[in-house]
Amino acid sequence: MEYKQAILVRQDLKLPAGKMAAQAAHASVECIFRADKSLVKAWRAEGMGKIVVKVADEKELYSYVQQAKDLGIATAVITDAGHTVVEPGTVTCAGIGPDTAEKVDKVIGKLKLA
Amino acid sequence: MEYKQAILVRQDLKLPAGKMAAQAAHASVECIFRADKSLVKAWRAEGMGKIVVKVADEKELYSYVQQAKDLGIATAVITDAGHTVVEPGTVTCAGIGPDTAEKVDKVIGKLKLA
Repeated sequence: MEYKQAILVRQDLKLPAGKMAAQAAHASVECIFRADKSLVKAWRAEGMGKIVVKVADEKELYSYVQQAKDLGIATAVITDAGHTVVEPGTVTCAGIGPDTAEKVDKVIGKLKLA
Repeated sequence: MEYKQAILVRQDLKLPAGKMAAQAAHASVECIFRADKSLVKAWRAEGMGKIVVKVADEKELYSYVQQAKDLGIATAVITDAGHTVVEPGTVTCAGIGPDTAEKVDKVIGKLKLA
């Protein structure tokens, strides 16, 4: 795969699966709006490869997001409105890319699948 | 909320949470590409409300997708490439909308949160 998107989810929140799915979708979409259109087009043509990986907590999440920013990769940090499961404004997950798999893997290559 | 998107996930597959999140994100994104641009814009301006709900199996998933189609709502049925958890080509989830909450709720109003 030449292009990919990564979604980082906080493990410490222990979100219910459906909540995690909604937040991950939010991250994916917001990142697509922010990413370079030609990258999005190439990524979509290739089947929209994406990977959902675990980060320990908010601090770790932001450290990976910063690494992505430093490489010029589109990012989106998602906070939950907090009506139900978590406190309002809680950072739940982040999107990184789509961008080249080579660049994305530089950031998230060592993280484990969620 | 005036606009919303729904993501339907099959419960019978018992997908791991990370897998479900990736498939749900896929459904969300594909539906956005297919939906009317003005609906996407309005939905985004309002905070991209989305809900992840359960369907029992593939048959039930398709029946809700058909109801959405009949109302003119954008839909996307997602199949997994099947490298890991499920057989290749397995239908995992579906996206419905974004569209007006009124229309989306006509289809999924009775489904339970995933």
